[in-house]
Amino acid sequence: MSVQLDSVYEVIHRRRDVRGQFTGAPIDPDALRRVLEAAHAAPSVGLTQPWDFVLIDDHGLRARFHDHVEEERAAFTATLDADQAARFASIKIDGVLESSLSIVVTYDPARGAPAVLGRNTITDAGLYSTCLAIQNLWLAATAEDLGVGWVSFYREPVLRSILGIPAGIRPVAWLCVGPVTHLETTPDLERHRWRTRRPLDLAIHRNGWAPQA
Amino acid sequence: MSVQLDSVYEVIHRRRDVRGQFTGAPIDPDALRRVLEAAHAAPSVGLTQPWDFVLIDDHGLRARFHDHVEEERAAFTATLDADQAARFASIKIDGVLESSLSIVVTYDPARGAPAVLGRNTITDAGLYSTCLAIQNLWLAATAEDLGVGWVSFYREPVLRSILGIPAGIRPVAWLCVGPVTHLETTPDLERHRWRTRRPLDLAIHRNGWAPQA
Repeated sequence: MSVQLDSVYEVIHRRRDVRGQFTGAPIDPDALRRVLEAAHAAPSVGLTQPWDFVLIDDHGLRARFHDHVEEERAAFTATLDADQAARFASIKIDGVLESSLSIVVTYDPARGAPAVLGRNTITDAGLYSTCLAIQNLWLAATAEDLGVGWVSFYREPVLRSILGIPAGIRPVAWLCVGPVTHLETTPDLERHRWRTRRPLDLAIHRNGWAPQA
Repeated sequence: MSVQLDSVYEVIHRRRDVRGQFTGAPIDPDALRRVLEAAHAAPSVGLTQPWDFVLIDDHGLRARFHDHVEEERAAFTATLDADQAARFASIKIDGVLESSLSIVVTYDPARGAPAVLGRNTITDAGLYSTCLAIQNLWLAATAEDLGVGWVSFYREPVLRSILGIPAGIRPVAWLCVGPVTHLETTPDLERHRWRTRRPLDLAIHRNGWAPQA
């Protein structure tokens, strides 16, 4: 088939990190399968596909995680100055309880080891692969009109304990997934004046590093 | 606009990690700009957008990097048993010299620091964001009929030295980018019998970690 370029860019630019717009409506199982197939189709170092996906609809597990997130929110607040703390207070940081499904994406460094082609010099290469799968998941979900929000206010050992993840496996992301009322056109942190986006031109260097303001 | 779902999935599944199919033909500047805009539209922890893109068309710089990759290829070969080494010998690991452009993607942990919203407990969260930008770049390039190949046979200090990247900035990927004759339908490492892909169902767990074969 011929690819409709506009559709690909539309999804890439429409995608948002969702906190407050989840409806809690069920996810169509076929759509969920397509989204997971998309994640699983990501490139990976040495073709190790080192990711796993833990689907969590259990309310008790999500409530335990959410309690932990609230603790870590308080811990972060304690590191902020008064002005930052005031702005942070109005920012919602997760949709764990309101979204339809949580998906924890993990990384298994032992898969395909020890001779992982392409990981000889870069230990983190497998971790990088896992993130590529997460972005595939995120874009596919956006194409399916589902919202995704990445929650990172947690301690890895606590998350391991809640889900029974073995010590050798590293949780990389807790993703909240589900139908949404809408996607915002501006990122939450910009709307709440936490931070503004950087112009692309400042990020581009040519034939070597160019220091920039 | 309404998104054509098939186009999004087509790109996600058509994408390959390209080594041997680069033509060396020039990249349309408008397409390159769209690809970089797509990368720059990725989600990032605390809206830090901690990535930079070093575009390299200089042949001398690419040749220096390629020489280093060849050394690291030899070093990896030395770690393999005879059977693995024989299979590895037939596998091309980079298209640095044949592709039209190299793009090195870097991570700056200082951007937005110290109060990075969402990085309080997960130090690597900014590194993860950088990888999300890489996957956006990769999918956009695929939609533009460009190939992308991620080369990871290098030592970070060597790459820093070649491009003059400061010590605080971490190179995350060397990407070869450009027009290709075609994209293979099967990953190179599977075609060369290095490794086969894992069934998706083995990667899915429900409401907790399920040990699997």
